Amino acid sequence: MTSSHSVGSRCWAIAEGYLPLDDVPKDDPRLMSHEAACLLNTQERDAHVTLTIYFKDREPAGPYRAVVPARRTLHLRFNDLSDPEPVPRDTDYATVIESDVPIVVQHTRLDSRQSALALLSTVAYAGERA
Amino acid sequence: MTSSHSVGSRCWAIAEGYLPLDDVPKDDPRLMSHEAACLLNTQERDAHVTLTIYFKDREPAGPYRAVVPARRTLHLRFNDLSDPEPVPRDTDYATVIESDVPIVVQHTRLDSRQSALALLSTVAYAGERA
Amino acid sequence: MTSSHSVGSRCWAIAEGYLPLDDVPKDDPRLMSHEAACLLNTQERDAHVTLTIYFKDREPAGPYRAVVPARRTLHLRFNDLSDPEPVPRDTDYATVIESDVPIVVQHTRLDSRQSALALLSTVAYAGERA
Amino acid sequence: MTSSHSVGSRCWAIAEGYLPLDDVPKDDPRLMSHEAACLLNTQERDAHVTLTIYFKDREPAGPYRAVVPARRTLHLRFNDLSDPEPVPRDTDYATVIESDVPIVVQHTRLDSRQSALALLSTVAYAGERA
Repeated sequence: MTSSHSVGSRCWAIAEGYLPLDDVPKDDPRLMSHEAACLLNTQERDAHVTLTIYFKDREPAGPYRAVVPARRTLHLRFNDLSDPEPVPRDTDYATVIESDVPIVVQHTRLDSRQSALALLSTVAYAGERA
Repeated sequence: MTSSHSVGSRCWAIAEGYLPLDDVPKDDPRLMSHEAACLLNTQERDAHVTLTIYFKDREPAGPYRAVVPARRTLHLRFNDLSDPEPVPRDTDYATVIESDVPIVVQHTRLDSRQSALALLSTVAYAGERA
Repeated sequence: MTSSHSVGSRCWAIAEGYLPLDDVPKDDPRLMSHEAACLLNTQERDAHVTLTIYFKDREPAGPYRAVVPARRTLHLRFNDLSDPEPVPRDTDYATVIESDVPIVVQHTRLDSRQSALALLSTVAYAGERA
Repeated sequence: MTSSHSVGSRCWAIAEGYLPLDDVPKDDPRLMSHEAACLLNTQERDAHVTLTIYFKDREPAGPYRAVVPARRTLHLRFNDLSDPEPVPRDTDYATVIESDVPIVVQHTRLDSRQSALALLSTVAYAGERA
């Protein structure tokens, strides 16, 4: 598995972001609307990750910080971010993710505002290669 | 955050485009069918953006112009474009997006023609790197 | 718009393909299940495109041929391919798309087997850059 | 079709993975929730593929092994993996896919926990080019 050690990038961008107002509480928390950045660290050392969130009409928020341990994945829900401030609901945003070791980032949303689920997922944009 | 300054490309393509005829008005405008290009500008200066829209059987439309201010994101709805002409409904199209500074582009559609939402999102194709 | 002339690749792959059996005819043909390759040609000359379709347990089918005129987009439905043979339903397949001029390819599916639409879209994989 | 011989990469990553608990059996197995890696081998020789699955709080699982014959596609369902161990349900995971010849990988999920289907698909992240 030596080649997997070189998978990834140190800088990623997700231009699309939106947390719906979830006015109908779901019995099952797995079916609550959420948006996530799925982070994969295949390296042998921990990845220290910084997120900066951009908006339409105010200065960026952050940095938000997270650690993805060596050989682990972290599915980070934007709904859960609180430090330095929560991500506002019903507001367009975009995210830049920077890491001290190469990681892979995929973006996912589950929208359960209506009775049927809507899902989206896409690989984030890699700014440079490791 | 120095590395985020190099995130992006000056030329992007979205080969898929389609605005459904929205025959059932929704009470909530956030649930109306729409298609958007999410633009992220992490640079320290404004991005002047030009969109050209390609069709199956006529000359391209445009240029459409937009500005993404420094350190901001703009979620541009194709439904809202009107100058030099609106984007026709129920018609296949494709889009090329050019910018004078590197930006990141993601393509999103919300289809609410039926009672259940359908969502799609994908990073656009970057023609060259900054 | 000089830079858009260099957008694209001459070789693309879509590893995912599946045409559902559409047992419930829809009143509106726009809501029939379908799978499409959206092709964008920003060049000043026509693109002559060849599709080869790969399967799990038989030799590839094709070549299928299409032309995307200069400065046009073509949203090609796999359901409509018939020469040299139709694409089988309820069968996994994958597609390689080759062109004599650089194009951009995006893959879309609309699944209407159930009352709610499901949509997916993703940029295809570019084998080489123009 | 000489150019298609160079399509692909030997190392791919899918940062997002999740197999829902499928508590409502479906009459039609094609509509059961599933997650797949669609693998395309356009080469003239077989591809020997290794999958490693990463988790949040335990060591990676694998290697899982598969063969994609020459000029064939394989749509591998994560639900069906059993050796060395099944993929746990209701658990976030990520996948690295390595191959001895260049292949193309696309990631797909069909979520049928509710009456309406939700679909997602995205090209995986290519670590290096062939």
